[in-house]
Amino acid sequence: MPLWGGAFNQPTDDAVRLLNDSLPFDWQLYDVDITGSQAWANALQRIGLLTPDECAAILGGLEAVRAEFAAGSFTPDPGDEDIHTAVEHRLTALIGPVAGKLHTGRSRNDQVATDLRLWVMQAVPQLQEQLRTLQASLLDQAEAHLNTLMPGFTHMQPAQPITVGHWLSSYGTMLARDQVRLTQVLAEAAICPLGSGALAGTPYPIDRAALAEALGFSRATLNSLDGVSDRDYVASFLFAASLLAVHLSRFAEDVILFGNPGFGFVSLDERFSTGSSLMPQKRNPDPLELARGKTGRVLGHLAGFLATLKGLPSGYNKDIQEDKEPLFDTVETFNRLLPVMIGLVESLRFHPAAMRSALDERMLATDLADYLVLKGLPFRKAHHIAGQAVRAAEDQDCLLSQLPLPAYEALSPLFAEDVYQVFDFDAAVARRAVAGGPAPEAVRQTVAALRAGLSA
Amino acid sequence: MPLWGGAFNQPTDDAVRLLNDSLPFDWQLYDVDITGSQAWANALQRIGLLTPDECAAILGGLEAVRAEFAAGSFTPDPGDEDIHTAVEHRLTALIGPVAGKLHTGRSRNDQVATDLRLWVMQAVPQLQEQLRTLQASLLDQAEAHLNTLMPGFTHMQPAQPITVGHWLSSYGTMLARDQVRLTQVLAEAAICPLGSGALAGTPYPIDRAALAEALGFSRATLNSLDGVSDRDYVASFLFAASLLAVHLSRFAEDVILFGNPGFGFVSLDERFSTGSSLMPQKRNPDPLELARGKTGRVLGHLAGFLATLKGLPSGYNKDIQEDKEPLFDTVETFNRLLPVMIGLVESLRFHPAAMRSALDERMLATDLADYLVLKGLPFRKAHHIAGQAVRAAEDQDCLLSQLPLPAYEALSPLFAEDVYQVFDFDAAVARRAVAGGPAPEAVRQTVAALRAGLSA
Amino acid sequence: MPLWGGAFNQPTDDAVRLLNDSLPFDWQLYDVDITGSQAWANALQRIGLLTPDECAAILGGLEAVRAEFAAGSFTPDPGDEDIHTAVEHRLTALIGPVAGKLHTGRSRNDQVATDLRLWVMQAVPQLQEQLRTLQASLLDQAEAHLNTLMPGFTHMQPAQPITVGHWLSSYGTMLARDQVRLTQVLAEAAICPLGSGALAGTPYPIDRAALAEALGFSRATLNSLDGVSDRDYVASFLFAASLLAVHLSRFAEDVILFGNPGFGFVSLDERFSTGSSLMPQKRNPDPLELARGKTGRVLGHLAGFLATLKGLPSGYNKDIQEDKEPLFDTVETFNRLLPVMIGLVESLRFHPAAMRSALDERMLATDLADYLVLKGLPFRKAHHIAGQAVRAAEDQDCLLSQLPLPAYEALSPLFAEDVYQVFDFDAAVARRAVAGGPAPEAVRQTVAALRAGLSA
Amino acid sequence: MPLWGGAFNQPTDDAVRLLNDSLPFDWQLYDVDITGSQAWANALQRIGLLTPDECAAILGGLEAVRAEFAAGSFTPDPGDEDIHTAVEHRLTALIGPVAGKLHTGRSRNDQVATDLRLWVMQAVPQLQEQLRTLQASLLDQAEAHLNTLMPGFTHMQPAQPITVGHWLSSYGTMLARDQVRLTQVLAEAAICPLGSGALAGTPYPIDRAALAEALGFSRATLNSLDGVSDRDYVASFLFAASLLAVHLSRFAEDVILFGNPGFGFVSLDERFSTGSSLMPQKRNPDPLELARGKTGRVLGHLAGFLATLKGLPSGYNKDIQEDKEPLFDTVETFNRLLPVMIGLVESLRFHPAAMRSALDERMLATDLADYLVLKGLPFRKAHHIAGQAVRAAEDQDCLLSQLPLPAYEALSPLFAEDVYQVFDFDAAVARRAVAGGPAPEAVRQTVAALRAGLSA
Repeated sequence: MPLWGGAFNQPTDDAVRLLNDSLPFDWQLYDVDITGSQAWANALQRIGLLTPDECAAILGGLEAVRAEFAAGSFTPDPGDEDIHTAVEHRLTALIGPVAGKLHTGRSRNDQVATDLRLWVMQAVPQLQEQLRTLQASLLDQAEAHLNTLMPGFTHMQPAQPITVGHWLSSYGTMLARDQVRLTQVLAEAAICPLGSGALAGTPYPIDRAALAEALGFSRATLNSLDGVSDRDYVASFLFAASLLAVHLSRFAEDVILFGNPGFGFVSLDERFSTGSSLMPQKRNPDPLELARGKTGRVLGHLAGFLATLKGLPSGYNKDIQEDKEPLFDTVETFNRLLPVMIGLVESLRFHPAAMRSALDERMLATDLADYLVLKGLPFRKAHHIAGQAVRAAEDQDCLLSQLPLPAYEALSPLFAEDVYQVFDFDAAVARRAVAGGPAPEAVRQTVAALRAGLSA
Repeated sequence: MPLWGGAFNQPTDDAVRLLNDSLPFDWQLYDVDITGSQAWANALQRIGLLTPDECAAILGGLEAVRAEFAAGSFTPDPGDEDIHTAVEHRLTALIGPVAGKLHTGRSRNDQVATDLRLWVMQAVPQLQEQLRTLQASLLDQAEAHLNTLMPGFTHMQPAQPITVGHWLSSYGTMLARDQVRLTQVLAEAAICPLGSGALAGTPYPIDRAALAEALGFSRATLNSLDGVSDRDYVASFLFAASLLAVHLSRFAEDVILFGNPGFGFVSLDERFSTGSSLMPQKRNPDPLELARGKTGRVLGHLAGFLATLKGLPSGYNKDIQEDKEPLFDTVETFNRLLPVMIGLVESLRFHPAAMRSALDERMLATDLADYLVLKGLPFRKAHHIAGQAVRAAEDQDCLLSQLPLPAYEALSPLFAEDVYQVFDFDAAVARRAVAGGPAPEAVRQTVAALRAGLSA
Repeated sequence: MPLWGGAFNQPTDDAVRLLNDSLPFDWQLYDVDITGSQAWANALQRIGLLTPDECAAILGGLEAVRAEFAAGSFTPDPGDEDIHTAVEHRLTALIGPVAGKLHTGRSRNDQVATDLRLWVMQAVPQLQEQLRTLQASLLDQAEAHLNTLMPGFTHMQPAQPITVGHWLSSYGTMLARDQVRLTQVLAEAAICPLGSGALAGTPYPIDRAALAEALGFSRATLNSLDGVSDRDYVASFLFAASLLAVHLSRFAEDVILFGNPGFGFVSLDERFSTGSSLMPQKRNPDPLELARGKTGRVLGHLAGFLATLKGLPSGYNKDIQEDKEPLFDTVETFNRLLPVMIGLVESLRFHPAAMRSALDERMLATDLADYLVLKGLPFRKAHHIAGQAVRAAEDQDCLLSQLPLPAYEALSPLFAEDVYQVFDFDAAVARRAVAGGPAPEAVRQTVAALRAGLSA
Repeated sequence: MPLWGGAFNQPTDDAVRLLNDSLPFDWQLYDVDITGSQAWANALQRIGLLTPDECAAILGGLEAVRAEFAAGSFTPDPGDEDIHTAVEHRLTALIGPVAGKLHTGRSRNDQVATDLRLWVMQAVPQLQEQLRTLQASLLDQAEAHLNTLMPGFTHMQPAQPITVGHWLSSYGTMLARDQVRLTQVLAEAAICPLGSGALAGTPYPIDRAALAEALGFSRATLNSLDGVSDRDYVASFLFAASLLAVHLSRFAEDVILFGNPGFGFVSLDERFSTGSSLMPQKRNPDPLELARGKTGRVLGHLAGFLATLKGLPSGYNKDIQEDKEPLFDTVETFNRLLPVMIGLVESLRFHPAAMRSALDERMLATDLADYLVLKGLPFRKAHHIAGQAVRAAEDQDCLLSQLPLPAYEALSPLFAEDVYQVFDFDAAVARRAVAGGPAPEAVRQTVAALRAGLSA
């Protein structure tokens, strides 16, 4: 039986109940729902709407309900349409009619708004903790490969030599931004709507500031109409999750690519590969492909939820019930994905020889131009001459270091015997020691800065 | 145990399995998977790769597995990663090593591609049948209200009088387009990839055209690399579903609005309303709000899946596993929503008096202009004069029909005593008998045309 | 002519140039591009790669180019593919070959990344200033209507009486959140990638921290590979813009609805309405409908850009060029929309009598239940009895205040003569003085808090 | 001056006009707007609302306006809010007050709905023609490389040998589906709303079927309320465009990847590459990256427009004005992209030696299993043994063809000397001659079928 119905002559249609009932997914809120109800009971007692005994009975009864959920022994009534109804019914069964006093001055509108914020306030720090572990794994690998050279790409074409540490720490900076965004989501969620009633607050002199504090919120919401219908923080979470997913997807794409025999830069541990039902030799990077594919899923949750929000008129509307499934599913997606990414990164094997053999002297053409710059030529002119040198070497089917000096001299009188010193990959990387650059020392500092952020 | 592993030394990581395994949702494919396998077994027999006895054993064994699923008694092995593995393992348990011959020349890539198409080929007609019922309900109500006048709106402002039949049949035309789109999706899905192997076809001389026909497809796919990775039809389904959802959302918005006391045009049967835990008087149109809200969910599935598809390289990639949940969830969403919409439309009550009292003579200002047009004035000039008449009536705080003749004559010498015949709502509607117009006879023809489409 | 080409034998295909060239939209970056180049010139001088004279020539030349843009007299060369090329070419024309020294150690990759961040750092505060004005207009109207009663809605159904000030300030709280999000975007953007080169930093000992500070950034980016390809802040801006648009869309929906004659709560000034080419009487709320419609546009920019980001491999890829148009268009959309919203809110007329006449005693059913609660009945039971009273009044076709006392007593012995005091809308609102509630004093405090945020 | 205003006392606010006016983009409709108006004038004449002379004057005047647009000499009035107003004003200037008769019985609502459909009916066939050319280029290249072997990939890992013709024709099948979808969009668009008025049809006895036929539509719309607000066909176009973009994006991804030196399978003509401002050696596949990036743009247009549609109430609402820019921009995007893709495909160079050297005998492990199957072993067992052979060869660091016979015999007694015949890539491909397979003859048939579709 629902919590309403006094003004109704007919029961709800069965198909409507199947459509409306949210217990199949909102049972996950049981813990925060009970915590919120206990705080509300205390607030009612403080203003005399509950006696100490009534309050104690309610608090104890709620604790008993929580224990049933935790033990997996809770059985809802067939008519329980949502977690709030289920908990109140069970509480009534356990402690009798006094349970009916709990909902005084409260609506399910402010109740569920509070529950969902509390749930987010638990879920986000857990996600952040997993992210920190992933970040630590990335940075450990980066530090282990500060001096390992690899080709850096732009436009998926070989560009300039960098280091493995440089490549890996680029993902470290992305994850650091994700952490910041999640912290902002947490702050956005941590504002308490309890006491907003259905839309118009409550006629009882509840101290909403104290209530907010008791539940761990930073403050109470400022407007009850907005308080019951604000789900911005859910959208903010889905957005922060979307960018996190995008970063994992890009990392996955890199690793899949670098693991292809055309590159052979890395290989996955067998525990993180799977096989084929048809082709006996296959070792597929399934988890990385799922990291990529599940990003679409998260982006879809964001796009869909924003479309739902856009269509809302003022106040609480049932459309908002569609907040929970995308939120829960997104958290669950990361709960499954992040442990895999952590293990995969920790066990990722690098093949320095393959990476070095993929270096090509043409990747030093910029250094060749810089050579001319240091001899006084404007860069734009030097760039053009270096391009001609590349073409000359290609035409003669030789390396840049094999192009004879007269050929260089024909391009510019500034070239001299020391030009051949340019073609040293390690030196080229070492020169790029500017902050954020690929030189080992620069990467070491970036890693240190990111580690400092981790422990901040 | 997976179907592969001969080349692996280490078992898959547990977290990877939790991420990868699709059995929790793809078990829904059991029926089509078994049907597809039976067709494959027959095809193998036809080319001598199975003896008649072997084939009979496999067909019978598969039928036994299907019966277990149907009876709810099927229990997967802990290591079954997907429905294909689960069925093959169970088949092996039932009929022994001969089961190992079933996968000859086949890959899970073409197998799942076939399964999912077969599933869509079952789901779409069921959805279309529900839509036909909804359409019939709408048209029944439209015909029952051919002569019931109501305000027609543009910009959510009163525009011109129309009829309830006209309003309702506008949704009939939308649903008719949805049916066409679903039929196109069905045609797009009904092409058979079986025999595409993992990507490169099969070395055995399978007659793919016969196989396609045996399974109810219209033909075989033309390229095996595309055949295993094409999920366009899933996107097409999600798109057709998105527009259908948009139409239901717009209808829901209209009915919610018209049910607001500010309008009072319609009211929902109590079986299709719900109440409030706080406000005893509330009767809320929850199902309509969910129709609106769940549209975001479906749009999100489309947006997310397209983003996943966009990021795919050539051939089968595990990202594609993300096709099933948005597809299944979308179908399930309509399976819950459509029966509610049907009952709600059938039981919707109309309040003709409230609708007529919402008509306002200013809604006939266009007819006033047309009056002048028929007396020879260019419409643009007539429109301006009618606008001035509206303003004059507002300034004098009277109805247009109460504005004295001299006031009209002051605006144009073409006005005469017969101008007052303009202010007849029924006549105004009756005049709009052009094809597709709101006049009862015009709506009757539109309804007839839509009914003809229903039975086509 | 492009800035490259030394290694090319053939010119770019014309169709490729039409597809690639970004000058038609990235010319908007001219001011920040020049500012960024001046800072780079100074940095080159500081390490001796430019002499003071060369640096002065470059700085002056760039200033002259800026003046040409500002005066509208700048004419690009036909071959200028982007703003960076256009500026460098013009600089070369103005000051000769020394201009070729400006690009030393720099790539267009870090150049455009810097430009776009500088552009965002200008655009966001301008947007915030407009938002502050809109917020002030809303709060002015809210304070002018602290005591004006109106129906509050949930599920678009009359729920409880609130005040106009309460309704309007609910949008004030939404806009306050938007301001916070925009401030976070600003912080995210204000990190300087200049010195990241194409991907691997620069071999010259540029002091990137000083460079960042000179350009008004808070610090330099930590990794050059990420620095050139990070567009998270663009996505963050599009997300913040999306929620802002959602809020404006919801407000527009409310005002359109409340302006419908079925409500008649508000009316738009004629300057903010438009007419119909056919129907002379129409006054349409076009700007509000566009506020609603353009929200889809902004959501689309976000969804599209995230899909683009998702598909990127590591490092700079040309796909990223697709960052500018959604960003520029979103800012332009608000630049057009916000001034309209400000004027519309300032000139919005309220009709208190219509709002009061839309109040219905059934909206006090919760107060009726609270009456019983204060007499000791558990709320759940009181709620049920109040619902029965609503139904009784409906059955007798009378108001709740017209239902005779015996009828109340039949429902509960706790009812007494004082029950009729419940049916006072003003008192009901005044009772809801809890923080965030609709009572005039509570709204006054909320408005004050929001005003304090405005000036923070 | 707008086409309305008789009932207005105040002019529209300037900021509102800037927001509302659509002429900056809807001028593109001038040709179809004029064509539609001419048909409407003829229809008015047929029912006597225009005399033959009036009709001739209007038709001629409209033709003169069209000529001005075509010549680029048309100058709108400052107050022209949209293309319809601009054309009518200019017509009035040219032929006098009789122009004011043209809008008789018509609204801009049905006018623009007709215009946009006519525009789509022109744009789609042009797009289809470009697609046909692209398809022909792909199939030409496929036929030129029927016998060129390359590795086929799944999970971006080497899977089985295929042919270049097989790979290219997989995109041919995708484009063939795109053509079908565009043809369906065309049919959906080709239904005529003219005569629907603002929402309620027209009171004049217009023969809408004849009017539809005169304009090249297949029939008239069935309901005027839906007729003015239906933009499903725009969404359908954006969806068809999205899948087309996804296919081009996937092709671009493949070509970028195969052009990377790690593969070296293909190279772009220099006319279709660009360079770097910093790195002289770079030849970047910019057009392909833009094909990938612009897919996000198109997906965004779809997601955004669906969100806009979702939020619409019944009838015409100004939100719908947001239909044009995503539609126009999407068509323009393909108008720029497709000529580039055509040229790029035509000039794409393949490197057969690099492709063949990327084949690896482990890609024949499935054939090794099939060898055992043909000797009677169930495939599942054969698959396991082949996997063990792969591992054995890896452990001995030799090719499968170098693994000695005793090693094979140790795995299965079915192995014999003829096992070494398995390791022949050409034979392996030739065996896969099943319909849709990679064998040259199978690809030839697929190409022929696709060519037949091209000319259908």
